[in-house]
Amino acid sequence: MVENYEVEHSNQTDQMLQEVNDALENGMFIQVRRMLEDMESEDIAYLLEASPPKIRLILWQLTYPEKQGEILEELSEDVKDGIMVRMQPEQLAAATEGMDTDDVAYLLRSLPNEVSRDVLAQMDAQDRARVEQALAYPEGTAGGIMNTDVVTIRSDVTVDVVLRYLRMKGELPKATDALYVVDENSHLIGSLSLSTLMTTQLDTKVMDIMEDSHEAIFVNMNDSKVANLFERRNWVSAPVVDKQHQLVGRITIDDVVDIIREDAEHSMMSMAGLDDEEDTFAPAFKSARGRSIWLSVNILAALTAASVLNLFENTLEQMADIAILMTIVPSMGGVAGNQTVALVIRGLALGHIRHSNTRWLVIKEASVGLFNGIFWACIIGSVIIFWKGNWMLGSIIAAAMLTNLVVASIVGVTVPILLKKMKIDPALAGGMALTITTDIVGLSVFLGLATIFLI
Amino acid sequence: MVENYEVEHSNQTDQMLQEVNDALENGMFIQVRRMLEDMESEDIAYLLEASPPKIRLILWQLTYPEKQGEILEELSEDVKDGIMVRMQPEQLAAATEGMDTDDVAYLLRSLPNEVSRDVLAQMDAQDRARVEQALAYPEGTAGGIMNTDVVTIRSDVTVDVVLRYLRMKGELPKATDALYVVDENSHLIGSLSLSTLMTTQLDTKVMDIMEDSHEAIFVNMNDSKVANLFERRNWVSAPVVDKQHQLVGRITIDDVVDIIREDAEHSMMSMAGLDDEEDTFAPAFKSARGRSIWLSVNILAALTAASVLNLFENTLEQMADIAILMTIVPSMGGVAGNQTVALVIRGLALGHIRHSNTRWLVIKEASVGLFNGIFWACIIGSVIIFWKGNWMLGSIIAAAMLTNLVVASIVGVTVPILLKKMKIDPALAGGMALTITTDIVGLSVFLGLATIFLI
Repeated sequence: MVENYEVEHSNQTDQMLQEVNDALENGMFIQVRRMLEDMESEDIAYLLEASPPKIRLILWQLTYPEKQGEILEELSEDVKDGIMVRMQPEQLAAATEGMDTDDVAYLLRSLPNEVSRDVLAQMDAQDRARVEQALAYPEGTAGGIMNTDVVTIRSDVTVDVVLRYLRMKGELPKATDALYVVDENSHLIGSLSLSTLMTTQLDTKVMDIMEDSHEAIFVNMNDSKVANLFERRNWVSAPVVDKQHQLVGRITIDDVVDIIREDAEHSMMSMAGLDDEEDTFAPAFKSARGRSIWLSVNILAALTAASVLNLFENTLEQMADIAILMTIVPSMGGVAGNQTVALVIRGLALGHIRHSNTRWLVIKEASVGLFNGIFWACIIGSVIIFWKGNWMLGSIIAAAMLTNLVVASIVGVTVPILLKKMKIDPALAGGMALTITTDIVGLSVFLGLATIFLI
Repeated sequence: MVENYEVEHSNQTDQMLQEVNDALENGMFIQVRRMLEDMESEDIAYLLEASPPKIRLILWQLTYPEKQGEILEELSEDVKDGIMVRMQPEQLAAATEGMDTDDVAYLLRSLPNEVSRDVLAQMDAQDRARVEQALAYPEGTAGGIMNTDVVTIRSDVTVDVVLRYLRMKGELPKATDALYVVDENSHLIGSLSLSTLMTTQLDTKVMDIMEDSHEAIFVNMNDSKVANLFERRNWVSAPVVDKQHQLVGRITIDDVVDIIREDAEHSMMSMAGLDDEEDTFAPAFKSARGRSIWLSVNILAALTAASVLNLFENTLEQMADIAILMTIVPSMGGVAGNQTVALVIRGLALGHIRHSNTRWLVIKEASVGLFNGIFWACIIGSVIIFWKGNWMLGSIIAAAMLTNLVVASIVGVTVPILLKKMKIDPALAGGMALTITTDIVGLSVFLGLATIFLI
């Protein structure tokens, strides 16, 4: 094993993936099948994600059915859908065996209703009941990502009894770092970490060592909030309760990590006008279609800007320099405003921006806009005076720059906050709203002043 | 507790924060101090992050010194720095007591060298030695985020012996989900999860139940790679080894979650031209300065575009419609290209884009550009013919649109990959390089064709 570790890291997985790729390219399918047999499900998932669709289907067909459930769990939405549409209900039902209930529910949610019903019909009664219960919780809530495999204990037993009970059980659910203490009506009254359990004398009672303040997660809590709580509290797992404070399940860090990653990616992808589950290796035509909404909005924005320019046709006709310089101010407004938008979107996602500090933030960003505005107005004014030798033109572009940067900052901070209040995704709509505003304000102020003072 | 849980979630933390805010605004400092005493360190950290600088300093002064270390651990770079510059070395040394070694090292790294030396001098000898050892590992590697508090066991002892040893120890390091099995020379030979330990008969030997295939992390591995591995393997903690495969430490999921969040945020913030550690509530002047690099690059880009336009002064003078319409093509190219850039940056960050599939991806994105180009060329061509009643002008803008969307796609996919190869951050430079290219290509093609066919 030792020689595997080089300073410029190249780990086992990467090597394995390369070997599979090489074997595939040489058409050595039997060898690939044998390699896939030895690989961990999550590595196969990774390999599928990183492969073009054709290769992906070949690989999938070479995968052993017993592993398919675990692999599906690890795949991102788009890739998973592409594979599942080609599977039969009985194949899907077989794949779900041994999967976590929450993950099966998650899989079924992404299938068309009738297929999902067929798959459920193929499952055994107990599994079906559990999955149907999980499906009852809405997507995007704690209930949707929780598992029901919770180990509970009573508060009046001793450590020795608990340990003997666990040895009798023989196995603990994955990522179990604590047992939950409940009363006779299943109300959550505390938790006992495995560490504490292992380091305490055998005759100690659970009630004397349990932590009774475990902040439980309500089953309807938004999953991004759950993720923020996990992150802040450094939890590995946490209990989920219903309105009556009865224990209904348990959320584990592996599902939370996925949400943290997805939420963070969502902002980035949405700001660029992409669906955050877009498969990097989707077929070109499908990708093109997925991206056209954003381009439609943008062409409307661009045509609006053109119709603003149309109002100034006369001015543009009389002075070519105005046309030459008119793109500078909107461009700077767009960049400065988008910096503010990105900052605010992150602040909203992390929950840092609240009612009490919004006013402070607006004033601060407006000041940033003012500082930047003054600075860049001086720079661009001087450059234009030097380049075009026209004092008035330099002053006009400087004034337009100052105005637009201040407007960009104010719009950049207020629009995402307002969108969020209106329950519209700020990452999706914020940047576009900003760009349209800065384009129109930038062009109007520059051309308006030019028309008044130069024509 | 029950009434605390509403369907439209408002959890204890949020309420607590609101109360502290209200008390602060009313100047009730003694009450605030009492509230802070009751709060968890991570909630105080959250409160600090979400407060403007002035409030932040008041809160910090009201915080009990014993909690300050834990709070500092949870803060983001910029906020932490703002607080630490106002602390004395002895205060800092006191705050680090009880903190994880890796976190102390992380804190010290962000201090100026002489201050860091002063703080080390104030620590007790044992702590200092540990921290100095941690400081020896470069930032951004597994060594930089690992802890040295590892519980090791031998393979030839029984479960009963291990359990008695743990009870004697009395406490386990945080997030311990497994004990590591080493030989007499500290070589890692396996791991034993607490779950297995608890559910196995007492007379079983460790060697019979340990997992010997634990994929260890090499101490020099890049921390983003570590995060990817944790995510893929659903680990809670993992052992770190040196070149000789000797166990040197342990990485826990809480530090990994921070890296996942930071890496994902980094892409978003960098693409918008922001430092990813920029404090949302930094003073305006500091923020303005931090954002000026990106604006400098953009003004150069805008001036370059203006100088391209300058070449077509004659054309612009003769036909105002060209000036009116010339911003449409660059704008669409920018949006389409940035969609590709965002997709590729995510693919690179997740490790999905590799040498073997790069060619496929370039062809795919070029095809997306071609499909989009044909579609939007038809749309814009028709709109312009209808609006301006000029067939030639419509055809020219359509041709420019097609060219620019194809170029945008190809540049959007190749530039980030090339930048990554050149070890330049694609998230930081990719979008800007794209925008400059699409502006210049869009303007040149449209104005060039217009000059040839219309003037």
